[in-house]
Amino acid sequence: MNITKTFKIAGTGKYVPSEVQKSEVMERTLGLQPGWSLRFSGVKERRHSTGESNADMAVFAINQALDNAGMGIDDIDLLISSSVTHDYILPFQAALILRIISGSKEINIPAMDVNTSCQSFVSALDVGINLLNGVKYKRIAIVSSEISSIGLNPANAEVYTLFGDGAAAAIIEWDSNYDGGLIKSMMRTYPEGYFYSMIRGGGNAYFPKNHPYDPAIYSFNMEGKKLLKLAKRRIPEFFDEFFSDLDVSIEDIDLIIPHQASKVGMALFQNIYPGTAGHVYSNLEKHGNCIAASIPMCLHETIDEGILNRGNYCLLAGTAAGFAIGGLLFKY
Amino acid sequence: MNITKTFKIAGTGKYVPSEVQKSEVMERTLGLQPGWSLRFSGVKERRHSTGESNADMAVFAINQALDNAGMGIDDIDLLISSSVTHDYILPFQAALILRIISGSKEINIPAMDVNTSCQSFVSALDVGINLLNGVKYKRIAIVSSEISSIGLNPANAEVYTLFGDGAAAAIIEWDSNYDGGLIKSMMRTYPEGYFYSMIRGGGNAYFPKNHPYDPAIYSFNMEGKKLLKLAKRRIPEFFDEFFSDLDVSIEDIDLIIPHQASKVGMALFQNIYPGTAGHVYSNLEKHGNCIAASIPMCLHETIDEGILNRGNYCLLAGTAAGFAIGGLLFKY
Repeated sequence: MNITKTFKIAGTGKYVPSEVQKSEVMERTLGLQPGWSLRFSGVKERRHSTGESNADMAVFAINQALDNAGMGIDDIDLLISSSVTHDYILPFQAALILRIISGSKEINIPAMDVNTSCQSFVSALDVGINLLNGVKYKRIAIVSSEISSIGLNPANAEVYTLFGDGAAAAIIEWDSNYDGGLIKSMMRTYPEGYFYSMIRGGGNAYFPKNHPYDPAIYSFNMEGKKLLKLAKRRIPEFFDEFFSDLDVSIEDIDLIIPHQASKVGMALFQNIYPGTAGHVYSNLEKHGNCIAASIPMCLHETIDEGILNRGNYCLLAGTAAGFAIGGLLFKY
Repeated sequence: MNITKTFKIAGTGKYVPSEVQKSEVMERTLGLQPGWSLRFSGVKERRHSTGESNADMAVFAINQALDNAGMGIDDIDLLISSSVTHDYILPFQAALILRIISGSKEINIPAMDVNTSCQSFVSALDVGINLLNGVKYKRIAIVSSEISSIGLNPANAEVYTLFGDGAAAAIIEWDSNYDGGLIKSMMRTYPEGYFYSMIRGGGNAYFPKNHPYDPAIYSFNMEGKKLLKLAKRRIPEFFDEFFSDLDVSIEDIDLIIPHQASKVGMALFQNIYPGTAGHVYSNLEKHGNCIAASIPMCLHETIDEGILNRGNYCLLAGTAAGFAIGGLLFKY
């Protein structure tokens, strides 16, 4: 496998709210049978923010990533926020994160938001790797921070028990001598599935002025069967194409980090590629689906726990509302 | 001036709703003196959507850009939506635009949203230029489409008369033989001004569940004096740095397209750089501030009207809520 662009993940960080929401408690509240959540959503527990904002959580995650990289925010040339949820509609979220992380320092680096729903981190990483050139951009911070708990609808038990809050960040660095980097990235959008998983309310289509708050409109909704049918067709088509011009197969990859979509979504991947069993990482039971933060949270955990080591090959396998699929294969 | 990355703007397009909203009518409705809007906001007329969605307007603009480039949507490798306003919170807007523009065709290209408030188009263009490599990405469509009219607050006359709706797109193309392209781009964020211009409601900070619709919360608000003071300091600092390592000065640039922020904002730029008079383009009187769509609308108009011609040098000078400034200098 040839490295097409050298880069190094210099550090990663993760932040989750301290308060654990156990499925057994949620099940009692909702009148569900014990074990319902684990059986249907695949989630035992998740965290819900108890006051931390999206930007606060992003800052905690970036600061840990900077610590692990032995850097400070002044070493960063570009900050990318890659999340679905955010504190304000306007200005963009990365500016608020930069404001908080800068503290009393004057840090006027470029900052921007990149959004491709649940695979925002993968897209932002792809953009960031491409921008790294050792001159203008030497070190880039990418962060996903998601709070879904504020908008969850208890009437929709499957969704209510599925999602969690969390944040994670990575610092990527230009290092032309480093024996690691991008092997391949590929992104595809399948908008035939646009309406299969969405939040209808809050944008111009269902603007708050004309559509007062109603959890049925302002919460995440999914046409699970249609989405699953689409994913069943598109995921193998996508990853077969991804590996078609590589000299390895998906089963050879040391570590695969899929989006922690749901129990069904994770099982689907394993059913399509049974040979990847044992190489696929999941934190779904412990953290739920943390939207775009799930993949970088898994990335941090696998590095932190010694599962992903220098020299290993890792595939980030994003799936996202859109519908979209993204693959990014790199040598860590 | 050296071209640091070759690229060609193959075509541009623009769409505005057909219904003209004249300032004289708005002034009568609001009980303002005739001419108030032109005097304070700098706007004579603007368009308000009469049913077109953000995605619809984006599609009209892209289709015109494709026509002007002699291309179809099947020729495009990547679609970037670069807007503040959008139809839905989730999925991302570029997927919806791709869905509509694809029609019955199956177009599964990558798509993503890039957001840096009012300078989103400049940031997306910068990302797009960087990604163009003639292999994976040969032709990229970038579109900004904004509907602000749905959220305007009549109680805030300055803002109410300032904003308009509109969309514009550009197709950029890899052409290694082309004698044109990027000279320089530079982006900076000044988050000390984060709270000087914002929409508070709709994100997690003022979530619709806990904050019922109130135009004071869900509309654009500006601390004009503070913002102006910050801009007065940062704009000359930014553009002096931008041109410090170029062999030309800002006065030498054939065409400057600033964000059409407001009458005061446009005047500020002219006051700082009086030597640019006659080179600065504005459509503020005719279209108002169309958020991120203003700059590409001006780009389309100047090409369409023969103001920007092949071989000319053009500076896109973005300013944005954040606070942020972005410059992108290219040879057309």
